Amino acid sequence: MSKSLHDRALAYHKEGGPGKLDVTSHKKLDNDQDLSLAYSPGVAAPVREIAKDQSNVYQYTIKGNLVAVITDGSAVLGLGNVGPLAAKPVMEGKAVLFKHFAGINVFNIELDTQNVDEIVNTVKNIAPTFGGINLEDISAPRCFEIEERLIKELDIPVFHDDQHGTAIIVAAGLLNALEIQGKSVTSAKIVVAGGGSAGIATLDLLVNLGFKKENMILVDRRGVVSKEQISIVNKYKAAFAVNTSKKTLGDAIDGADVLIGVARGNLVTQAMIKSMAKKPIIFALSNPDPEISVEDVFACRDDALMATGRSDFPNQVNNVIGFPYIFRGALDANSKIINTEMKVAAVHAIKDLAKLPAPQSLLEIYQVEELSFGKDYFIPKPFDPRLIDLIPKAIFDAAVKSGVSRLK
Amino acid sequence: MSKSLHDRALAYHKEGGPGKLDVTSHKKLDNDQDLSLAYSPGVAAPVREIAKDQSNVYQYTIKGNLVAVITDGSAVLGLGNVGPLAAKPVMEGKAVLFKHFAGINVFNIELDTQNVDEIVNTVKNIAPTFGGINLEDISAPRCFEIEERLIKELDIPVFHDDQHGTAIIVAAGLLNALEIQGKSVTSAKIVVAGGGSAGIATLDLLVNLGFKKENMILVDRRGVVSKEQISIVNKYKAAFAVNTSKKTLGDAIDGADVLIGVARGNLVTQAMIKSMAKKPIIFALSNPDPEISVEDVFACRDDALMATGRSDFPNQVNNVIGFPYIFRGALDANSKIINTEMKVAAVHAIKDLAKLPAPQSLLEIYQVEELSFGKDYFIPKPFDPRLIDLIPKAIFDAAVKSGVSRLK
Repeated sequence: MSKSLHDRALAYHKEGGPGKLDVTSHKKLDNDQDLSLAYSPGVAAPVREIAKDQSNVYQYTIKGNLVAVITDGSAVLGLGNVGPLAAKPVMEGKAVLFKHFAGINVFNIELDTQNVDEIVNTVKNIAPTFGGINLEDISAPRCFEIEERLIKELDIPVFHDDQHGTAIIVAAGLLNALEIQGKSVTSAKIVVAGGGSAGIATLDLLVNLGFKKENMILVDRRGVVSKEQISIVNKYKAAFAVNTSKKTLGDAIDGADVLIGVARGNLVTQAMIKSMAKKPIIFALSNPDPEISVEDVFACRDDALMATGRSDFPNQVNNVIGFPYIFRGALDANSKIINTEMKVAAVHAIKDLAKLPAPQSLLEIYQVEELSFGKDYFIPKPFDPRLIDLIPKAIFDAAVKSGVSRLK
Repeated sequence: MSKSLHDRALAYHKEGGPGKLDVTSHKKLDNDQDLSLAYSPGVAAPVREIAKDQSNVYQYTIKGNLVAVITDGSAVLGLGNVGPLAAKPVMEGKAVLFKHFAGINVFNIELDTQNVDEIVNTVKNIAPTFGGINLEDISAPRCFEIEERLIKELDIPVFHDDQHGTAIIVAAGLLNALEIQGKSVTSAKIVVAGGGSAGIATLDLLVNLGFKKENMILVDRRGVVSKEQISIVNKYKAAFAVNTSKKTLGDAIDGADVLIGVARGNLVTQAMIKSMAKKPIIFALSNPDPEISVEDVFACRDDALMATGRSDFPNQVNNVIGFPYIFRGALDANSKIINTEMKVAAVHAIKDLAKLPAPQSLLEIYQVEELSFGKDYFIPKPFDPRLIDLIPKAIFDAAVKSGVSRLK
């Protein structure tokens, strides 16, 4: 990070009061009469109504529009295991984004434990408070078990954004990139570099979108995850182990159509990129340094399509075009879960949005002449005002259709 | 509750959006540049500063001005064990009051467990999020153990308002009432009716204020807590067991100077009130029905002083004149605890405020001609604008003086 950005970010967090959040009331409280409605004795009225019928909690409290953003501080940004206190600015930031983009209230909770059982118990114990749970920056493979167990045990949506949020945007971008490059879902050879939460969830979602397991290779820190390695990798990676004699990341990328990097900066060489199939697609998502820089890719492959995690290059994979709207749709549907149908609906809605003609307001926000579907624009932009119209509706409809909405 | 209040309270909680709270941001978020400060990549700057020095969390996040209001729904208002969902309107109300009166942000958390160990673990696990913990509406005697253990294990203030908030206002009011009636702290004979959280905490605080244990009688559901009962009552009640042959509430009240009712409506008869010493003091705090009505007391004792929990009679014991300001002072002092010195300081600050001449603004809020210290006004009013000037300062000073402030 530049010194200037560092200093501006510190000032942003400090000036005008520490942090970013404010808990306020949207109800009047001017005198004893208001006090007797907001609190004792009047507040006993909604208490009694909810005690009579628990579903009334959605009418008289903010539960239905309140999401917990929960972390244990074990995998914060690219900075690793910085702990709960240092994770707090990120979680407050997430809360700001939820509210700004989708009108959702967030209480961010930083946990003083990194034990799986403790995390599951704690989240279960505080769950009545919330309409949904967004797990955040929890390291793999613990994140998989934590999410699985919470989904099973709770009756509100639980969603680990580092997994599914990333996977959804990547998948939407990839479908568009394949279309532009004239490649097909069923035959594209895909390499995922990175065996963490984003890598595993992306592979999982791609399978649900019709991509073939046999065309996908997962590469982790040790190299290609092949059938031989099944006994030494965790079960989440093992599910994507392939029959292959390839060993290294270079072996895997050789001849591949798609490289999805969710690992670490400067992992990929120009030689590897040169070895890819014609019209390759490269998602180099590590931040701030991509697995290979945009300049290095285009210096050796002018037939490539590229996406990164950075806002200063075209085609940013930014989770903010996903999670606020996915939760908006799920909360609006009073859904019990965010299921595969809803994730797939999000992929298609995001994918389709990039193809719609950009309205003038969007061009003005980004101070550009045009945003036309193609090489430099196949993923929607974070401040696109159409996201809130299109994505929640798609999620809502998928929730209703797949039978997980509680609306009558 | 009247039908009209019931309906107005439901409408208040429903109209303009369910519930009462809103989580917003006090920082700008208009474009990609703001986004890069509030979230990735700029947010890494405060993350790194906090990872380097944990105390920086108070500069870059809202931790230092964020209190958790936590309940298990086991003792909600006078309604009892209604559970976490039905407790939610009360906890949101508490959050509204914290913000309105003292500018403190609250995340209210409703727990899906009533097991003491689970509650303690859960609160410990979420504690890094907060600058303080306000326990609320947790039934006795569990509330005592929960609070004790959390105070021991956490390095932020933990305060069970139903205990200490109530005790502080009662004690402040009682000191003033004794002065008006010409009675003394060391000789006043006091009966506390109710062995729950408020009763025990009040006895505890009165001892710390110089009242004599031998002058106090605790009466619970079974009757007078005498030395004979030590083996059948919990240890918190046992601490106040006295040597006496008195058995019933009536026996205890006979000849007493002070009756503090924190039990249930209509528990006390006119005959009992008639048996009290000259110039008796009666705090009948059960809500909505006091232990004995104001009318019934004054019909038989025109020399009495009286306080209730109701806003439609003089001398309301309302916790809202305590907890927002107590936490304000504790947070401002970055105190590790709310200790006895701070509670005593709160008592004296509240007591003294009732003796100050009421400013015009206060008379206008309450639409009264005067508020002069005496029979009808010995406890400050909830909307007194001087509370925020006087109480936090007293708490702050006591924290610093007693060595529990972390300020340098």
